[in-house]
Amino acid sequence: MSTIKVAILGFGTVGEGVYRILNEKKNEIKLQTGYTIEISSIVVRDVTKNRIETPGIKITDSIQDVFADPDIDLIFEAIIGEEPAFAYLSKAISKGINVITANKAMFAKHGPALIKQAENQNVQIGFEATTAGGVPIIRTLKNLLQADRVQRIQGILNGTSNFILTKMRQDNVPFEVALEEAQANGFAEADPSDDIGGKDAFRKLMILSDLAFGRQPIWEDIQINGIDKIHSDDVSVATEKGLRYRHIADISIDENGIPSGSVGPVLIGPEHPLYGVDGVDNAIIVDTEYLGALTLIGPGAGMYPTASAMISDFLHIVGKREKVLIPS
Amino acid sequence: MSTIKVAILGFGTVGEGVYRILNEKKNEIKLQTGYTIEISSIVVRDVTKNRIETPGIKITDSIQDVFADPDIDLIFEAIIGEEPAFAYLSKAISKGINVITANKAMFAKHGPALIKQAENQNVQIGFEATTAGGVPIIRTLKNLLQADRVQRIQGILNGTSNFILTKMRQDNVPFEVALEEAQANGFAEADPSDDIGGKDAFRKLMILSDLAFGRQPIWEDIQINGIDKIHSDDVSVATEKGLRYRHIADISIDENGIPSGSVGPVLIGPEHPLYGVDGVDNAIIVDTEYLGALTLIGPGAGMYPTASAMISDFLHIVGKREKVLIPS
Repeated sequence: MSTIKVAILGFGTVGEGVYRILNEKKNEIKLQTGYTIEISSIVVRDVTKNRIETPGIKITDSIQDVFADPDIDLIFEAIIGEEPAFAYLSKAISKGINVITANKAMFAKHGPALIKQAENQNVQIGFEATTAGGVPIIRTLKNLLQADRVQRIQGILNGTSNFILTKMRQDNVPFEVALEEAQANGFAEADPSDDIGGKDAFRKLMILSDLAFGRQPIWEDIQINGIDKIHSDDVSVATEKGLRYRHIADISIDENGIPSGSVGPVLIGPEHPLYGVDGVDNAIIVDTEYLGALTLIGPGAGMYPTASAMISDFLHIVGKREKVLIPS
Repeated sequence: MSTIKVAILGFGTVGEGVYRILNEKKNEIKLQTGYTIEISSIVVRDVTKNRIETPGIKITDSIQDVFADPDIDLIFEAIIGEEPAFAYLSKAISKGINVITANKAMFAKHGPALIKQAENQNVQIGFEATTAGGVPIIRTLKNLLQADRVQRIQGILNGTSNFILTKMRQDNVPFEVALEEAQANGFAEADPSDDIGGKDAFRKLMILSDLAFGRQPIWEDIQINGIDKIHSDDVSVATEKGLRYRHIADISIDENGIPSGSVGPVLIGPEHPLYGVDGVDNAIIVDTEYLGALTLIGPGAGMYPTASAMISDFLHIVGKREKVLIPS
């Protein structure tokens, strides 16, 4: 059996990106892994909505269609919000189905439980796409942690906020105008409050904390500020001084293993490694015992960057299996 | 058998770093991998030289002492120069010994042959430490390449050059003074010509080209310039204009799969992602089809960063084996 049967849950930007890459890279994936990928079904909320053509694939609004098929090997989950995503993934894991998620709101809260459940069931779980879009911070952290100790993580984890701050500075426009432009460009949600209020960055920071330190701080202990209080006058004054506002999520661990941190706008100068990170890019600085400071910068959002993070998880999971030899 | 017997070839900065981390992390490595690491011997050129204490480990100037022991499982190689390193590693691979190297001059030239030989012998070869010190560019590229296509790589690949350029700008000193300071800080070799002449960056670029594109360009086709022609007046003029000199190695691939590139100083402005990369840091920008541009910045040299890259290779190789369960 050299076919891997998968389902995609959610067919927004990210779900569609996964579909596109799996199709475009079908032959390469087969050559590289020995496996043929079969997308059996795509689960959506509204089956009547207009979508790109997906020939041969069942479009359904019922998760039961997925669970009823005993051959489903892996699920790509790109739904928005905690539920029903958590219930779906927990059920999937209990049925021995591998899962790959891009759902940060769900994973910040339920990630620790899902990881534990997956370990117990000997099922693989991928969550690279939950944090910093296409930037491979999860894989990089996992590798670092094998031989090193992470002491602190700081980052620009919300592309929408960074895009707005960049626009306000470069075009000298008020917050509202920059936000509208972010929405027009498809970077901000219809309801952008989690982005501009700092909650989205906070959730990603919790995912990083759990991975790097094996625990999250008590959520209520973290001060969360967004960029929504920054006035264009503040930006002008900062620019005159050669400074820039960045929305930075920051977490570190003390000698007793207690993590603490903050999320909010910070004024930084040209020598700060996050000074040049503009637009929808995300960036993460990881301080470790042996390596020192490692910085990763890349696209924090977008169809292909985020979907490619999920495909990377997928190939990593498949790569752990015995390679199927393809007769040439 | 839950012991892994290793040898260290070369006991300069990097070799000593490997020894230190293996010792300091002995228990963690055992817990994590199930294996006890035994350093059986350290091969040096001059056994009479003063070194740190390495109790219980044989210090020898004969590689035959290593090859005579049929239980040696893996070699860390941190020698300077092409030979005898290449001969040693080729011999090791032919005997089924896994190898991890930090030797960029050797690996730029003989890496493709060693990788092939290792594949044929079903032996693992790690070379993370050959390029950009502690920055995990090799692992990151390997992961990216599974699902994506690399189009271009640009980077600051020589920490000494970057340190000198930074000093010239920040302290307004001539090239020679900055070079002396680099040497006094242990960043530059006694003979720094490969660093300041661009050859060291070129070699790392060739290693990256082979990995990213499956081939290297014809070496003679690449224009190599160093930083040794840059006058302090040039730096002052650039600084007045808000520009900075960076020594950038650059390679890309055309539609026909032909790689081409250049190595030399470039003037860049504050919006360039390498503008803020100062001191001995290295940085690499990878342009890919799906992900877009990913930038990695971190320490390009130093005992612990480079050695930790080798340990990371080591744990990756060991991690591929069946985990040995430790009775608790």
